[in-house]
Amino acid sequence: MAGDSSDQRALQYEQTLMYGRYTQELGVYAKEEAARLRESGQRRSVSERSRALDLLEYDKGRCARCRRSGYPYVLEAPAQDFISVCTVRCQKFLISRVGEDWIFLILLGLVMALVSWVMDFCIAICLQAQKWMYGGLDSNVLLQYLAWVTYPVVLITFSAGFTQILAPQAVGSGIPEMKTILRGVVLKEYLTFKTFVAKVIGLTCALGSGMPLGKEGPFVHVASLCAALLSKFMSLFGGIYEEPSLIGIKNESRNIEMLAAACAVGVGCCFAAPIGGVLFSIEVTSTFFAVRNYWRGFFAATFSAFIFRVLAVWNRDEETITALFKTRFRLDFPFDLQELPAFAVIGIASGFGGALFVYLNRLIVQFMRKQKAINKFLMKKRLLYPALVTLLISTLTFPPGFGQFMAGKLTQSETLVTLLDNRTWAKQGIAEEFDYIGHSEAWKHPQVNVFVTLVLFIVMKFWMSALATTMPVPCGAFMPVFVIGAAFGRLVGESMAAWFPDGIHTDGTIYPIVPGGYAVVGAAALSGAVTHTVSTAVIVFELTGQISHILPVMIAVILANAVAQSLQPSLYDSIIRIKKLPYLPELGWGHHEKYNIRVEDIMVRDVRYITLNCCYRDLHNVLLTGNLKTLALVESAESMILLGSIERAQLQSLLSQQLGRPRRLEYIRERAAAEKKRLLVLSNTDNEDGNQRASHEVRFQISTEESSLTPTRPVPQKPLKPALKRTSVVERPTEIPTSPHDNSGIALKNLFCASRDTEGLEKNNNMESPPSPELRRPTKRVRISVVDDGDVEDDMTIREIAEWEEMQLDEQVNFNNCKIDPAPFQLVERTSLHKTHTIFSLLGLDHAYVTSIGRLIGVVSLKELRKAIEGSVTVKGVKVRPPLASFRDSGTSSSENEATELHKLWDRHRSMSLPREHTPSESDEKSQ
Amino acid sequence: MAGDSSDQRALQYEQTLMYGRYTQELGVYAKEEAARLRESGQRRSVSERSRALDLLEYDKGRCARCRRSGYPYVLEAPAQDFISVCTVRCQKFLISRVGEDWIFLILLGLVMALVSWVMDFCIAICLQAQKWMYGGLDSNVLLQYLAWVTYPVVLITFSAGFTQILAPQAVGSGIPEMKTILRGVVLKEYLTFKTFVAKVIGLTCALGSGMPLGKEGPFVHVASLCAALLSKFMSLFGGIYEEPSLIGIKNESRNIEMLAAACAVGVGCCFAAPIGGVLFSIEVTSTFFAVRNYWRGFFAATFSAFIFRVLAVWNRDEETITALFKTRFRLDFPFDLQELPAFAVIGIASGFGGALFVYLNRLIVQFMRKQKAINKFLMKKRLLYPALVTLLISTLTFPPGFGQFMAGKLTQSETLVTLLDNRTWAKQGIAEEFDYIGHSEAWKHPQVNVFVTLVLFIVMKFWMSALATTMPVPCGAFMPVFVIGAAFGRLVGESMAAWFPDGIHTDGTIYPIVPGGYAVVGAAALSGAVTHTVSTAVIVFELTGQISHILPVMIAVILANAVAQSLQPSLYDSIIRIKKLPYLPELGWGHHEKYNIRVEDIMVRDVRYITLNCCYRDLHNVLLTGNLKTLALVESAESMILLGSIERAQLQSLLSQQLGRPRRLEYIRERAAAEKKRLLVLSNTDNEDGNQRASHEVRFQISTEESSLTPTRPVPQKPLKPALKRTSVVERPTEIPTSPHDNSGIALKNLFCASRDTEGLEKNNNMESPPSPELRRPTKRVRISVVDDGDVEDDMTIREIAEWEEMQLDEQVNFNNCKIDPAPFQLVERTSLHKTHTIFSLLGLDHAYVTSIGRLIGVVSLKELRKAIEGSVTVKGVKVRPPLASFRDSGTSSSENEATELHKLWDRHRSMSLPREHTPSESDEKSQ
Repeated sequence: MAGDSSDQRALQYEQTLMYGRYTQELGVYAKEEAARLRESGQRRSVSERSRALDLLEYDKGRCARCRRSGYPYVLEAPAQDFISVCTVRCQKFLISRVGEDWIFLILLGLVMALVSWVMDFCIAICLQAQKWMYGGLDSNVLLQYLAWVTYPVVLITFSAGFTQILAPQAVGSGIPEMKTILRGVVLKEYLTFKTFVAKVIGLTCALGSGMPLGKEGPFVHVASLCAALLSKFMSLFGGIYEEPSLIGIKNESRNIEMLAAACAVGVGCCFAAPIGGVLFSIEVTSTFFAVRNYWRGFFAATFSAFIFRVLAVWNRDEETITALFKTRFRLDFPFDLQELPAFAVIGIASGFGGALFVYLNRLIVQFMRKQKAINKFLMKKRLLYPALVTLLISTLTFPPGFGQFMAGKLTQSETLVTLLDNRTWAKQGIAEEFDYIGHSEAWKHPQVNVFVTLVLFIVMKFWMSALATTMPVPCGAFMPVFVIGAAFGRLVGESMAAWFPDGIHTDGTIYPIVPGGYAVVGAAALSGAVTHTVSTAVIVFELTGQISHILPVMIAVILANAVAQSLQPSLYDSIIRIKKLPYLPELGWGHHEKYNIRVEDIMVRDVRYITLNCCYRDLHNVLLTGNLKTLALVESAESMILLGSIERAQLQSLLSQQLGRPRRLEYIRERAAAEKKRLLVLSNTDNEDGNQRASHEVRFQISTEESSLTPTRPVPQKPLKPALKRTSVVERPTEIPTSPHDNSGIALKNLFCASRDTEGLEKNNNMESPPSPELRRPTKRVRISVVDDGDVEDDMTIREIAEWEEMQLDEQVNFNNCKIDPAPFQLVERTSLHKTHTIFSLLGLDHAYVTSIGRLIGVVSLKELRKAIEGSVTVKGVKVRPPLASFRDSGTSSSENEATELHKLWDRHRSMSLPREHTPSESDEKSQ
Repeated sequence: MAGDSSDQRALQYEQTLMYGRYTQELGVYAKEEAARLRESGQRRSVSERSRALDLLEYDKGRCARCRRSGYPYVLEAPAQDFISVCTVRCQKFLISRVGEDWIFLILLGLVMALVSWVMDFCIAICLQAQKWMYGGLDSNVLLQYLAWVTYPVVLITFSAGFTQILAPQAVGSGIPEMKTILRGVVLKEYLTFKTFVAKVIGLTCALGSGMPLGKEGPFVHVASLCAALLSKFMSLFGGIYEEPSLIGIKNESRNIEMLAAACAVGVGCCFAAPIGGVLFSIEVTSTFFAVRNYWRGFFAATFSAFIFRVLAVWNRDEETITALFKTRFRLDFPFDLQELPAFAVIGIASGFGGALFVYLNRLIVQFMRKQKAINKFLMKKRLLYPALVTLLISTLTFPPGFGQFMAGKLTQSETLVTLLDNRTWAKQGIAEEFDYIGHSEAWKHPQVNVFVTLVLFIVMKFWMSALATTMPVPCGAFMPVFVIGAAFGRLVGESMAAWFPDGIHTDGTIYPIVPGGYAVVGAAALSGAVTHTVSTAVIVFELTGQISHILPVMIAVILANAVAQSLQPSLYDSIIRIKKLPYLPELGWGHHEKYNIRVEDIMVRDVRYITLNCCYRDLHNVLLTGNLKTLALVESAESMILLGSIERAQLQSLLSQQLGRPRRLEYIRERAAAEKKRLLVLSNTDNEDGNQRASHEVRFQISTEESSLTPTRPVPQKPLKPALKRTSVVERPTEIPTSPHDNSGIALKNLFCASRDTEGLEKNNNMESPPSPELRRPTKRVRISVVDDGDVEDDMTIREIAEWEEMQLDEQVNFNNCKIDPAPFQLVERTSLHKTHTIFSLLGLDHAYVTSIGRLIGVVSLKELRKAIEGSVTVKGVKVRPPLASFRDSGTSSSENEATELHKLWDRHRSMSLPREHTPSESDEKSQ
């Protein structure tokens, strides 16, 4: 890799008439290339012809199969052939269309818009119901309080309970998980229909409760769920005759592209902000983004936002499509240049505030986890924690109580609308001419200044939001943070308005200060700081429908990001750490010391490998002791030249073939044939006996995960299913060679016990312990004899089988039927951490082998990399060197390393080549 | 590679109180890891300590060196030591600050804003001057015409001539070249100060002429030039003591990040659109984008746009910072839902129009190139073409002539302002109350309808812009296209307004149609179609300062992109093809057949390689016959196991060491020592003779490129310089070992003749021909004898030298002092074209080796890949198969391939291992 970046071509410039041109294709190369082209052209035309033939055959095959097996229940008479042909044609057309991306994206946008709209509708009804209850009981404050408090407690408790029972994966935001999934890691049960139902209903209830929770993160998850389910649903049409396993593997990159688009749809739909949605989802979920997938996000998000807003128009909520939180700031003079310092202050303060929010959120989670007593108690009564939190928050916001000082009676969106109001509160008081008069009044308390109300609101909502988002319900934190930011901006704006009642502008016209503009800036800055994104600026413009404050917003967002990123990880990265998701952390800004860490410092030197000439016993041992998914294949233990990597499953299949029953029967048959020549024996065993014994055999019982999700189910058979399905991919190759009623030998069983443990990552993942002894040394000596479909009788004793297996294990491995990945990713010792990180992120790698001139010397996995990055991030004492210094050092150190490496190479080469050369010379001497 | 994507980890979900958590780190792994950590912790602490020591030494070294050599001219007395220490400290502080990215970005933004503002100012003055001349001569139409025509002809001719003479690289847009540079290819002389001057002055003149040319592409180039020059300038501080070659190589990724940010600054500054600028530059220049570099672009572009607009405020052009082309559409009801079909029509028509524009532009270039007669004539009179084009265009726009029917007297920005006007022309006529009354009037002709004017404007400007952008001056096409799009949108809008005079909305209020909104949509759609970008939508919002039309704009832009992308490449890709820049084309949408092309179909099987035990003669031959920059190093010709790749320069250095004079002198010394023992000979040669001969020696004269750029320069020595500089990187390692007055042997000279040809890509690049015979067999037999600094006399004849060299060439190569890239990028035969393309784009590769289980079987370079992609794109007859079909095929074919590969492996393994195993058994038999 080290040479790739430096290996560039410098091209000469040639001046022609229109444009200059770079002459690369010309010259001698043309002749050389012409010959090659002719040759390759022939080859290609041949391959194209064969491909066309393939295609024909494929279509024929499909029709034939379709007629034969596709509709056996419809076609009873041959007269219906015509209909069937038509159906097949229609279906083929559908299939060819359905597979196209844009159809999928339109469907996704449509579904998501509908889901979003229905959810919004339900949430609005829920919130109205609370208001109605609260308003109806205004005769008795206690009753009012009870109604005010009970309603959200019931809803939140229901939401928590429902998601716990149905799909605990639906809890929380969803963006951290999507980030991990888009990184290429498979999170189990995360994109299932159950999770979808749990998330949608749970989220509706949670938001309907009026707690300070957001819907943007969950919407990303819901959209991804929609995409995954839609893709499954469409593969019913498109992939009706395809082998799912093949599609699953090959189609994966497309799936990830679609999920990325879905994330954009989620955000876009939530805020009716297609551009901001795409950018936000890119910033939040991707490390490297393929520009060629850009259009997918825009397409789907635009369509979705369009439908989402059209539904509002059709529902007569609005006259036409406009922004969700439309503002009406003046266009001609949105702000004065001299106001910019105030905007910058908002940005910097928001940066600190955002970092504080992330820290507070993490602190609460960690505190609750550390307190063993509380934790134990709450783990038993799972619904108590959300109920208590809700009780606390709703008590504090009770409008006749403390809520009157913090606009407690407003819902989240009402709060936002009032905060973005384009009138000044401090000077003019709350104006009465607008239609949302009742809402703005909530900020004005007869005894208390509007500044006090705002400060109280900010402080109370800050910790309330940080606390509420730790509840185990589907919820995000974007919206609450957004509202707090808007309040903070409004506070600064009102202060400015009070300070400069006639505006700052000096010459002529009076342009009063617009506190609403400050609110917009504050909202963008704080949400940008918490999520570490810049695109909140775009979201804000799309939400408010005005872009006049673009420069203040951009300045504040960038400053907020600069401050927040240097203090804390983003909220999503923080949750990734809390949840211990397998995600690679980002390299921080300007951590130049990371250029000095090299792969050799972090790699695992004790690599498990197999050699090309190893015997099955080695294979067996390696499989028993290791738990890696892939194993390195080297030429020999001395040369250590890396030839490729083999998946564990492949090796298991190899071993099971070697030790499996067919091979043993073959052996018996041969032995019998040899025996036959010597003496004649008649033996007859009845089939029933054999069948009975088959059912006695030890089957591969796969232990299920200790799932706390389904503790109530009494059926013992059921949990087996998903577990079996899970291992099916691994076991498939082994099932093909072995016959259904197979006693696959002892060593093999041990092996599968081991392989079972490596699947998934159980809590007590004690891989290194030897397999259970009762499997290794069976206590009862059963004489197994099964009649084959041929005429051979399996009459070996366990001891004989063991002996035979020992014999088999000493044979050399035949890698003929084994899938080898011939080019696993390789790094070199000197590769810097920075480069390794880039390559891992770019290619979505899981591990990479470290080689030194072809020789395997170590392996680096995501784990080591993560540790190295986090380790050096937390080390405070590391002196940050001048940025260019590290380059010089690395230059010298690399040349040293090269020298040593080359000495090694040289030594090795001599030790390898000299004996060979030596041998003939010796023999020459001998022959002389 | 094939296994990386499928090698994923499925993690289990564990339910905890707050968030679920994925248990991966737990279990046995912890124990294992603890031990490893302890070990590695020790190792790290050791390495950290040594690093700290390094650092100390480094600092000391710097000071010491600084005192010794840095300021020898300042420090004459030791009393000045104190000052020097202070200076050093200050400088160190500066260095540590100057290297930080944000300082660089702020400086870049500042410089670019100033450059942009000054250029805009000059352009405005130029345009005003034309108007003034035209207005002053209103007595005589002929004089008026002459003034109207001569002025732009002179400016364009000057611009073309100036750039031709100073830096022909400054011609054209610059975005295609930046795309290529960001891909990792070095374009010579493209980022120099000369080019900067040529581009800035040329662009100012070109735009000042009033031709339909754009400034956005050139601004990208200018910003990149600024960044490159600024980075050079700052390395004067930061890298004062660094070896430039090391920085050059290591700092490259940072440079590319900075260039990407610079592109964003360029667009952002041009339109005062920071967000749109960042997005547009990403879409236009990148294939894969690192999200961690996102902030750089935003930061720099925001700062730059801010300064750019602040300058306008300070210059009293504006009261405060607002959009460049501010619109004043109504906010409450921007458009009706029923108008959306019209917007969609604009989008689709713009798509076709955009494709037509790209096609027309390419057609003109190709036509001019193909017509040999015209081409020859124009090549001689280079300035004639731009002069003629300018004459034609300015004649047609002459306001009293044809120009009166197409608003010819308006400048580009005036046209845009009038088109975005929020009043309706058709119904109300041109209103007179606004301040730009004179401009809007230009559209109204007493005899002709406003529709006819618009249609004429669109048609005429369309081909004029396509023609004008082919002139060899610095110019872009974005702005003209933008204006044409706005005119088209305005046309549709006016038609709608005429069709529905009272608006479409039915209930109650009358909302008349806003044709200005249609103009906004049209502008975004057409420019999006020509450039294949979606972010023109954002640019439009930032330009107009209103986001109310977001949905129509998004819909139109997406539709326009869909249509245009399926018909033609983007304008920039088209120019890349015309200029034959080494860029990898994108894989088109839904070209599913590309999944079926594999690396084995396109790779070059005849790889040039060297073996670990090769002799210098092989090296010599390989270097003489090949022209690759890197060569593969394999274990042996039989095993073909790829060990790494070596740069050509390294091999040349190896060879020159082997055949160089020091080694020969060593040989002579040894021979002389042996001789001395036998007989005593006295020999004395005078030094002058030797020196004279040295000047007679054949020096490495490097043939210069046939540069047509500097035909007027009479000095013959001058063109040598750049060429020498160019080859200096390659020759540096060879110059170090050889002494200044060196006759480096014959074979070596041949080699350098060859190496010289490979540097750059000359027109007559006849690599395969043997080197010139007079070098190979010198005609006169000079007896060369030079006295060394020691006491050995070089008295070998040419024949003796040749013999000695032959002897040397037969020795085995010692790779000890040779830099080997131990992990060049590897692909396998079965890697699909799609995947190869992704990997090449992601990692910016130039070539990759194709291996089959460690064995080198081929090589794929950018060239083959490009050919394969373009080939399959242009093949029209290829049937597009249902998207999932290809996966099935690939599944089966891959397993077949594996089988054959494994047979090969097996055969190879047997052939390699059996003899080895055989030998001992034979010897065993012998010993028995």
